[in-house]
Amino acid sequence: MREDGAAPVAIDVEGWVCPMPLRDAPNIVMGHGGGGAMSGELIEHLFLPAFGSAAHADLGDSAVVTLDGARLAFSTDSFVVKPIVFPGGTIGELAVNGTVNDLAMSGARPMVLSTAFILEEGTALADIARIAQAVGTAALAAEVQLVTGDTKVVDAGHGDGIYINTAGIGVVAPEVDIRPQRARPGDVVLVSGDIGVHGVAVLSCREGLEFGTTVLSDTAPLHGLVAAMLATGADVHVLRDPTRGGVAASLNEIARAAGVGVSLDERQLPVPDGVRDACGLLGLDPMYVANEGKLLAFVAPEDADRVLATMREHPLGAQAAAIGRCVAEHPGMVVARTALGGTRVVDLPAGEQLPRIC
Amino acid sequence: MREDGAAPVAIDVEGWVCPMPLRDAPNIVMGHGGGGAMSGELIEHLFLPAFGSAAHADLGDSAVVTLDGARLAFSTDSFVVKPIVFPGGTIGELAVNGTVNDLAMSGARPMVLSTAFILEEGTALADIARIAQAVGTAALAAEVQLVTGDTKVVDAGHGDGIYINTAGIGVVAPEVDIRPQRARPGDVVLVSGDIGVHGVAVLSCREGLEFGTTVLSDTAPLHGLVAAMLATGADVHVLRDPTRGGVAASLNEIARAAGVGVSLDERQLPVPDGVRDACGLLGLDPMYVANEGKLLAFVAPEDADRVLATMREHPLGAQAAAIGRCVAEHPGMVVARTALGGTRVVDLPAGEQLPRIC
Repeated sequence: MREDGAAPVAIDVEGWVCPMPLRDAPNIVMGHGGGGAMSGELIEHLFLPAFGSAAHADLGDSAVVTLDGARLAFSTDSFVVKPIVFPGGTIGELAVNGTVNDLAMSGARPMVLSTAFILEEGTALADIARIAQAVGTAALAAEVQLVTGDTKVVDAGHGDGIYINTAGIGVVAPEVDIRPQRARPGDVVLVSGDIGVHGVAVLSCREGLEFGTTVLSDTAPLHGLVAAMLATGADVHVLRDPTRGGVAASLNEIARAAGVGVSLDERQLPVPDGVRDACGLLGLDPMYVANEGKLLAFVAPEDADRVLATMREHPLGAQAAAIGRCVAEHPGMVVARTALGGTRVVDLPAGEQLPRIC
Repeated sequence: MREDGAAPVAIDVEGWVCPMPLRDAPNIVMGHGGGGAMSGELIEHLFLPAFGSAAHADLGDSAVVTLDGARLAFSTDSFVVKPIVFPGGTIGELAVNGTVNDLAMSGARPMVLSTAFILEEGTALADIARIAQAVGTAALAAEVQLVTGDTKVVDAGHGDGIYINTAGIGVVAPEVDIRPQRARPGDVVLVSGDIGVHGVAVLSCREGLEFGTTVLSDTAPLHGLVAAMLATGADVHVLRDPTRGGVAASLNEIARAAGVGVSLDERQLPVPDGVRDACGLLGLDPMYVANEGKLLAFVAPEDADRVLATMREHPLGAQAAAIGRCVAEHPGMVVARTALGGTRVVDLPAGEQLPRIC
């Protein structure tokens, strides 16, 4: 499993040996939360073996299950973004839109959400009220009901003001089958708009790193855009919201899951000037920066133009673009043609350039 | 709303005034997480007004919703227990059984769970593996599948090793209608066994408070016991697992929700010696100490003996007892007849005697 050849370090837990490949020490590092290779290793080598037969398949972002005859998508996400208020949004909108979008990426219509708050002793009630208001407003906008909740308080010095977990249930129509494994050579890769915006917005106001920018987070619920895309009758194979790890991590995961290659045309990637400037300043690649209101779609070639036109008519897809193709070559890899005409491999990031972005 | 007559402190959030009644400062205190009166105030006066029309009904422990024709229970809980390993269990079993039990208290058959971990940078992978194993083992025992998950990492000095959120979905049979509002005068109040065990087990190993005890946490999944009770065909009106705030908080909430009184016979409460001794030492009342594998049931009087006999035949109900009655007098209040023949009011606790117990 290790591509760098390092020997896995065995973790012995009461007679049970977990073959966790460790890059550094046998401890959690920030990179394990980055949505890249280290996150994947933690799931593959620690959580899945530990959960054993209680775990279903790949324990992905969203599961589609049939319960009592209903076809349902089910998803959960915790939000630990720092700071909790950033240009264009707060942890409250993120918590709603993040789970709504995970459901939408299965082609589901999101219906109900749970909200669970972990509050730090000493946090101002006014701050919590402001965040709770953002949750309520975002839920109304996303047409989901908040039906159940939980609140825990941890002592001052633990937690970090406010952490929020949301879980959600959506309904998936019988004919819909959208998942990474369905990507196939020939598919056109679409993106719904400007990339890298959320990550730059959060970074721009982070303590010790403030820089002037007019970039606002793109946090938004994408189920309406998805519904419009599906209403065209097109065969949408894969949908993914490129959050942690950005477009690069999402495309690599899809390429690996489906055993296909992805060939990008870097010139087609919509990168706004504010993101390009900030990334230049900070030494970041926009393809690795988190988005919270964008989606990637793999669409059968005969349907791609129609889907792209429909996306561009939707307010959340006005800047949509075709950015590449799914290919039979270099399976499991993402390769980009650069503006200068060369090619480069777009790797799965190891950890995260920007921790605690969502 | 304030019973102590103090004036509510208004919290102004961008033009929106939250009439939050504050006992002390306008900040979160540990008591807001205790499952007592302060937790209730936070929901009633902050979360519900802030969520606005996006919130459904009372945002309770578990919601029953109909989606795509299926009648489903949906619940979430975060677990922040300290320490994460305690006599008789770990945060892992709690995280599974807590949500399984919330679903079971709606009469649902629990089906699928999500797991979301917030890990602190520097936490040993071996500790996480041990907890994840406990999650897997508990899920197998509770016959639920772990279908979707999330992992976030926060910097060292935030979080507290491991926090876990679980959310779950269960299926509710069409004829089942179990909720606090259904308590009615005449109902017999049953408890499934010894009370106060979990809280004492956690306290017994808490830093600075170690005391010798053989009390092990009662953490257990209760859906099998509930299924056996329902299979009798009895009209079970209310089920509740008395976790934070203990039996006292749960009975007060039911009395308030249904507008009925509860009359307890304190001599009938099953309190094991180890719990009685520890509570004596620490100045605690066992009725206010958390349980994680016990349930309270309000059952129509004609069915009570049958349900009690069925509970006693189940391994998790062997010590079950009838502890009181639902009455028309003193609506919203719980009154206990003491061992000496007097009576006392069993108040809703304000905060929590024991923070971070689950």
